[in-house]
Amino acid sequence: MSGRLRTVRVELGERSYPVRIGTGSLPKLGEAVARATGAARAMLITEQPVNRHYGAAVMRSLRDAGLRPKRFLVPTGDRTKNLRQAGKLYEELLGAGADRSSVVVALGGGMVGDLSGFVAATLLRGISFVQVPTTILAMIDSAVGGKTGVNLPQGKNLVGAFHQPRLVWEDTDVLHSLPMRVRSAGMAEVIKHAAMWDPVLFARLERDVERVLELDPGVIGPVLQRAVRVKAEVVSRDEREGGLRMLLNFGHTLGHCVEALKGYRGVFHGEAVAMGMGFAARRSEELGFAPKGTADRLIALLQRAGLPTELPDFPRRAYLGALAVDKKKRDARIHFVVLRGIGRADTVPLLPREVLPAGSLRR
Amino acid sequence: MSGRLRTVRVELGERSYPVRIGTGSLPKLGEAVARATGAARAMLITEQPVNRHYGAAVMRSLRDAGLRPKRFLVPTGDRTKNLRQAGKLYEELLGAGADRSSVVVALGGGMVGDLSGFVAATLLRGISFVQVPTTILAMIDSAVGGKTGVNLPQGKNLVGAFHQPRLVWEDTDVLHSLPMRVRSAGMAEVIKHAAMWDPVLFARLERDVERVLELDPGVIGPVLQRAVRVKAEVVSRDEREGGLRMLLNFGHTLGHCVEALKGYRGVFHGEAVAMGMGFAARRSEELGFAPKGTADRLIALLQRAGLPTELPDFPRRAYLGALAVDKKKRDARIHFVVLRGIGRADTVPLLPREVLPAGSLRR
Repeated sequence: MSGRLRTVRVELGERSYPVRIGTGSLPKLGEAVARATGAARAMLITEQPVNRHYGAAVMRSLRDAGLRPKRFLVPTGDRTKNLRQAGKLYEELLGAGADRSSVVVALGGGMVGDLSGFVAATLLRGISFVQVPTTILAMIDSAVGGKTGVNLPQGKNLVGAFHQPRLVWEDTDVLHSLPMRVRSAGMAEVIKHAAMWDPVLFARLERDVERVLELDPGVIGPVLQRAVRVKAEVVSRDEREGGLRMLLNFGHTLGHCVEALKGYRGVFHGEAVAMGMGFAARRSEELGFAPKGTADRLIALLQRAGLPTELPDFPRRAYLGALAVDKKKRDARIHFVVLRGIGRADTVPLLPREVLPAGSLRR
Repeated sequence: MSGRLRTVRVELGERSYPVRIGTGSLPKLGEAVARATGAARAMLITEQPVNRHYGAAVMRSLRDAGLRPKRFLVPTGDRTKNLRQAGKLYEELLGAGADRSSVVVALGGGMVGDLSGFVAATLLRGISFVQVPTTILAMIDSAVGGKTGVNLPQGKNLVGAFHQPRLVWEDTDVLHSLPMRVRSAGMAEVIKHAAMWDPVLFARLERDVERVLELDPGVIGPVLQRAVRVKAEVVSRDEREGGLRMLLNFGHTLGHCVEALKGYRGVFHGEAVAMGMGFAARRSEELGFAPKGTADRLIALLQRAGLPTELPDFPRRAYLGALAVDKKKRDARIHFVVLRGIGRADTVPLLPREVLPAGSLRR
């Protein structure tokens, strides 16, 4: 069942690496890890239910490649992406013989990738790292670009490091085990990449979004490749978030507010981002940045992907409070990402009350 | 009392930075931090008794430079250089308003520098960092080169990151508050730098070691500058310990064994390194790497600096056990640093039993 591999290269000088997208390619992972890293041993970090579905196959592949793998399970969910869990992993990995010639392999969604990447970045001052993302969101976004980190009680991703993987290995077959709502949430970020950077990908999604959600082999590979390429291009030009990388936050300003106001319960990240994109696209038109019709096109596509596009019904002052990141600086401007049109985004410095003027909610 | 500043530049491309060595230069620190980092705020991390001696002066200097400083005290001693302490600092710094425009300033010995550097490396994926070392060892070694880290129950510095400071600020006046035994321990590393890299510095120490220990203003500045330059040259050519940087481990292989066998009690790091250097210099002669007389010259200088040069009386099998880093690989070779002569070192791969043949102890 294993077809050809599609490759996107993340260009970062001597830290460049390939993202390889295939179908039924998981059994070839071990060989690729050995070649990309030259590692003597693999430390596989994964979560349930990913482990139940693919853990044995991945261990076998790593073993066959001579990487004498050890497996470490972490509890699923963003709440365990913390320093305590990192501390536990350090001790477990060292106890299993991890050293500078080892590679950490992360098999799972964004949480596993972020946590494992942080451990790989800081264990023995940094050892090799390979990402094997198992969700659409992780495949096109969090597994590519080298951001790793853990949460603190004060907020998400407040501790971390930039640590690029040596290889990102993506097998689209693993997406079949995802429920449709999770696929839709992942699709929100594919649509985001298209809307802020790639009008050709956007048009392709307008043609085929239902087939992509069904994981139709004729479209899922090419679409993921194109979406990964957006992330790779942005990261290559702006590894450490100087400016360009901020465009990837399209829809996230209000999306984060929604997640915070809902206490991170009952809404997927992708769904919150879809709501934020719907709002941001409308504001882009109202502020005169995007031509009329831009928001309607985006919202129609999001809805076909099964995503919500209206902000939930919280009072305006609640949104303003959530927008003011630094509570002591109520007058600080936000780098708000607007669309200039489909496939082109920009940041504008706006006050919270300019992002959310009276009457901008509840249309 | 403030004289001219001596500067050593650590050349690392766009991450290059200066080490500035002065006398009575602490009051000028704030201005230098502001210029080197462009930071909006300073987060000062320090320990007792350094804080009691210099905390107020440093806070004033940072305040006068407009850096609105906050001060954080950490318990002194290597045992608190751990993840729990780092976690506490993250929360305290964020609670005090730390953001990407802040700079972490470490005022203290190597422990404070390593811990603060790790926090700066990982808070918000890395913020600016300035080292203000207050011991000889930290001034010439640990504050220069970007190694940061914390200990795990399984060993020292097992978690960390490479994070170069923007500036290292050294005021030799602070050394006056160090007891003579601590100065001697620091002098061990000055002698190590000279022995493995700089024969001119070695000859200078042979002339003036007592005056250096007395902190004579005519010699302490030039000697520190020369010792810092050794570290800077090695780091510039080998930032991440590819090979050259290993030479800095001269005397450390056996030194670490001594520390471990003594349970890290009753012996200073510099004293253990002095014992390790005495042993390694003798072995260098026995193995035919160094000309006769090399060890005697080194040992005589160490003794004039008030340092021990004989390994303590543990059984050979205890040393062999401590030497075998990976207990599962008893046959693994060690990169043992030998002298080729005064001012020139090399690494040779040796088995533990070749480092410590029967009869090599208790001369």
